[in-house]
Amino acid sequence: MKANTPIELNHGAGGELMDQLITSVLELYSKHSVFGGIGSKAMDDGATIPLSKPETIIVSADSHTISPIIFPGGDLGKLAASGTINDVLMMGGLPLAITCALLIEEGTQYSTIERILSSFAKTCAETDVAVIGGDTKVLPKGQVDKLYMSTTGIGIKVSPNIIADSNLKVGDKIILTGVAGVHGAALVARREGIELLTSLESDVAPLVSMLLPLVKTGYVHAMKDPTRGGLASALNEFAEKSGKGILIIEENVPTNEEINGICELLGIDPYSLSSEGKAILAVEASAAEEILEKIRSHPLGKEAAIIGEVTDKYSRKVVVRTPIGGHRILRKPLGEPIPRVC
Amino acid sequence: MKANTPIELNHGAGGELMDQLITSVLELYSKHSVFGGIGSKAMDDGATIPLSKPETIIVSADSHTISPIIFPGGDLGKLAASGTINDVLMMGGLPLAITCALLIEEGTQYSTIERILSSFAKTCAETDVAVIGGDTKVLPKGQVDKLYMSTTGIGIKVSPNIIADSNLKVGDKIILTGVAGVHGAALVARREGIELLTSLESDVAPLVSMLLPLVKTGYVHAMKDPTRGGLASALNEFAEKSGKGILIIEENVPTNEEINGICELLGIDPYSLSSEGKAILAVEASAAEEILEKIRSHPLGKEAAIIGEVTDKYSRKVVVRTPIGGHRILRKPLGEPIPRVC
Repeated sequence: MKANTPIELNHGAGGELMDQLITSVLELYSKHSVFGGIGSKAMDDGATIPLSKPETIIVSADSHTISPIIFPGGDLGKLAASGTINDVLMMGGLPLAITCALLIEEGTQYSTIERILSSFAKTCAETDVAVIGGDTKVLPKGQVDKLYMSTTGIGIKVSPNIIADSNLKVGDKIILTGVAGVHGAALVARREGIELLTSLESDVAPLVSMLLPLVKTGYVHAMKDPTRGGLASALNEFAEKSGKGILIIEENVPTNEEINGICELLGIDPYSLSSEGKAILAVEASAAEEILEKIRSHPLGKEAAIIGEVTDKYSRKVVVRTPIGGHRILRKPLGEPIPRVC
Repeated sequence: MKANTPIELNHGAGGELMDQLITSVLELYSKHSVFGGIGSKAMDDGATIPLSKPETIIVSADSHTISPIIFPGGDLGKLAASGTINDVLMMGGLPLAITCALLIEEGTQYSTIERILSSFAKTCAETDVAVIGGDTKVLPKGQVDKLYMSTTGIGIKVSPNIIADSNLKVGDKIILTGVAGVHGAALVARREGIELLTSLESDVAPLVSMLLPLVKTGYVHAMKDPTRGGLASALNEFAEKSGKGILIIEENVPTNEEINGICELLGIDPYSLSSEGKAILAVEASAAEEILEKIRSHPLGKEAAIIGEVTDKYSRKVVVRTPIGGHRILRKPLGEPIPRVC
């Protein structure tokens, strides 16, 4: 399709025009099927993944409705691929495949679709993830804000143990792989028109190459990417679901003056800001230093730190020890402070 | 949640309020996990499906943006579940699980969500499909039309052969399981305000109980639910992908006077109208009568008929023989004639 073609309702209506759109989009992807199965190029009712041995399948679904669709450090396509691939990884899975359903606003230029899906394709290619299927709907003007993407990631479990939010053990060390909240701060700066004061870019990235080797060790008990609701939500989910307490040593939490500045300016709690390229891990205490070192040796994990530990002192609560020795409860926020960050 | 709660942006923002919404929705579902894996109740980053033997996984993704969300004969929830479950089935799969990502318009009452997702849950329960995961986004007013659902179905292949659009064999009989276009006609009648002239209701339904036993026989070579673009699109996809011709005997195609009347009134080709509870099958000629009989013995297939056959006379074309003996090419439409039918 030509870049300047405006998308019409009929591009989502199951006929000749939809075929043209889908055929163009499929050319952007480098891998369309897994293990010789039926993939997206067949444009059939679904895809197949023939497994040669018993596996535990991992499935993670997500929708991406970020605004604007192009932002400092990334775009909707990179976000959709990274977010979904990371979610499969967070469950101890090797991401194999992804499906991508598009909701397109009538009148959007094909060049926009191409730009976003090329970026989506690039992230999938980097992580060797096949785009095996999808769906295309076009909605009348105003009933979608440009483009939304709904993705489902499919992987197979490669961790020898269960990696789940509910799996924290007392004594586990909590590792944060870098400065949290970069994505949320970059977006809010852009929206509030203060991006000229900051060089902050979203941290959105797939974390497979950094974390997959660690997943395989068996020392990672729980893992999560602190997206909507940030660290505050993610840590509280760990605590609630596992029935344990978490103590965070604030001076050990990696920070960034720009984020602190933006949060102060706008009255936002940095613990609630979303990340799209960081993870928190609860790991076996005896292996924590070694795992930290491996994370730090990866370009995406240079600022990683052990920020706290799992304790039975506080039940289902996250407690932050401040630098002057005080203690405060870090609550789950009502919600991420800024809308449409993912 | 109380039925009259208006959904706020924070209900999709990753914190306490989102938990409340998701917890309420999860209560509507009767099955949350598969084979003892991690399911939707864990509200983790994803779900797991532990397989005990090598299987071919089937994955099918779909978005549902129908308007209105409640229509004669069904609603968005029933449509989303049926459409996705049927797509897994069309690939020769036993549907096991589904994920459901919601895009909700700010201000929508929880009662609307509950009504639609209860219907979704009912269809999943009827087909023993577990709702293993999902996602929740709330968009500012006007950026979604009430509610969109993006679903991904996961199943395992139970057909002994490949069932694919590209798999037509010369001589295969084409079976249509009933009157096509009922869904599209019921919707357009409702929208054009002529529903008082008709008792037509959407045929939306899961087809598992009717078709799964046939899938297992190995006699079904290709199978498709003629949704967007109707029979015209579905038959042309068969023909194009398999490189064969299809001859349709028009007088054998089940019809309905009400649909013909609506199409005449509005100038719509009935072959392009979508169905959501019918399938077309290309089956081994020697088994066609037996399979037809089995379909007819099912409540959803009473009007099934053999409507044509696969031929090498016409290459990649669908030809309709009219009742007076003429022949015309049935082309793939530019698109489904009416927008937002699914």
